[in-house]
Amino acid sequence: MKKLILITNDDGVQAQGIGELTQLMLTLGDVIVVAPDSARSGAGCSITPTTPISLQTVREEPGLHIYACSGSPVDCVKLALEQVCPRYPDLLVSGINHGDNASCSIHYSGTMGAVFEGCLKHIPSIGYSLRTLSHQCDFKPYRETIIQIAQFVLQKGLPQDVCLNVNFPEVPELKGIRIARMARGNWTHEWAPANNPRGLNSYWLTGDFVNLEPECEDTDYWALDNGYAAVTPILSDLTAYHAMASLEELK
Amino acid sequence: MKKLILITNDDGVQAQGIGELTQLMLTLGDVIVVAPDSARSGAGCSITPTTPISLQTVREEPGLHIYACSGSPVDCVKLALEQVCPRYPDLLVSGINHGDNASCSIHYSGTMGAVFEGCLKHIPSIGYSLRTLSHQCDFKPYRETIIQIAQFVLQKGLPQDVCLNVNFPEVPELKGIRIARMARGNWTHEWAPANNPRGLNSYWLTGDFVNLEPECEDTDYWALDNGYAAVTPILSDLTAYHAMASLEELK
Repeated sequence: MKKLILITNDDGVQAQGIGELTQLMLTLGDVIVVAPDSARSGAGCSITPTTPISLQTVREEPGLHIYACSGSPVDCVKLALEQVCPRYPDLLVSGINHGDNASCSIHYSGTMGAVFEGCLKHIPSIGYSLRTLSHQCDFKPYRETIIQIAQFVLQKGLPQDVCLNVNFPEVPELKGIRIARMARGNWTHEWAPANNPRGLNSYWLTGDFVNLEPECEDTDYWALDNGYAAVTPILSDLTAYHAMASLEELK
Repeated sequence: MKKLILITNDDGVQAQGIGELTQLMLTLGDVIVVAPDSARSGAGCSITPTTPISLQTVREEPGLHIYACSGSPVDCVKLALEQVCPRYPDLLVSGINHGDNASCSIHYSGTMGAVFEGCLKHIPSIGYSLRTLSHQCDFKPYRETIIQIAQFVLQKGLPQDVCLNVNFPEVPELKGIRIARMARGNWTHEWAPANNPRGLNSYWLTGDFVNLEPECEDTDYWALDNGYAAVTPILSDLTAYHAMASLEELK
């Protein structure tokens, strides 16, 4: 049986990145796309419990079905699994995000929110992101690696509760792949004043990222800064097992 | 110097739970509340990069300042730290959420989104949630434990990259505290049809939670099901270190 691949993103169904990812995944199997009807940047793992979510067909042809969803990336995955997919997908891929989701940015990422949801639903799941500010990108340098990683996961699966966060630097040619951990880092100077005709205190979210360990060569940020694709295995079980003993005296 | 405690939530600044938490924290130090101007259930770690965020004063008195923010819980923390707090808070607490955030629900939780943000900013951070469907609750059974845990964290701090997820069952008297891991679990039957006068396919997000390991006594779900408060240490570094070696052949 042909593989079934579910695709979503957070830049919206019309984004260049998801179009590219769709073309690449069609070389590996049948594809169902359920993506937000417009951009949902910064959606994280958010869901929409207070408004009905609608689903509209964008395109239907043999082996490729595309739908637009009015919810968040996580809503898209939930809706795809229960209302769209004829069977459980063999793979979920999200992206290609315009902007990296390395270090702490993974927490805010709608691209990776969808990947977490796939992982929670026991589907091998991969997020792809490109460090770029552009909405028109040349994805040629990444195509081979995107397919290689997807094929690897289709063949071997992933360990329980583990998904992948794949980030690419904007380079003419990748130096290779690094298996990297999340860099410790943070956003600073996060607010810029906004003018407000009603006189309210208003601010735009912005910010500078600070890598707190730029000297460490085993991080996703180092990989990106040095021309490598960063592949980071991510755990959906968030328990800090090593910290449990230190809390025993609370009992 | 008196302790400075930052409070937020995802049920909104007017919710009963945050009012209760504010009264409890005033016994431990000065309090600044920056909370969403209305409910943001299911906000996860989402941020608002595309709209200006406004901040309005709700109440100002010695030792207690309350502000309403038009953003997500994470936006509230970011805005509080850069634009409101006179110095770095000694503690961040979020809640008391109306509804539990045990097992996989932590991923979708705005209450815990704010706690992650505090943790990423190196502030000892705790989320409190109560398993209830009611918006008018009796918080008396939990007051002592809420203060005990906050005092413990104020005195001892938390390990690097670790925050706390505290969940309470709705009981007249707690049996005690369990230091618990996240249960493996999942939401199923997540969509109910919505009527839509425009004829679109529309759905309400709903669902039944399934605990995949109900027999395990070391989980947050077991604790709640058996009348205990569940204290779960949570890690903001999401790297699945144990899975890195299995990916080496990708290189």
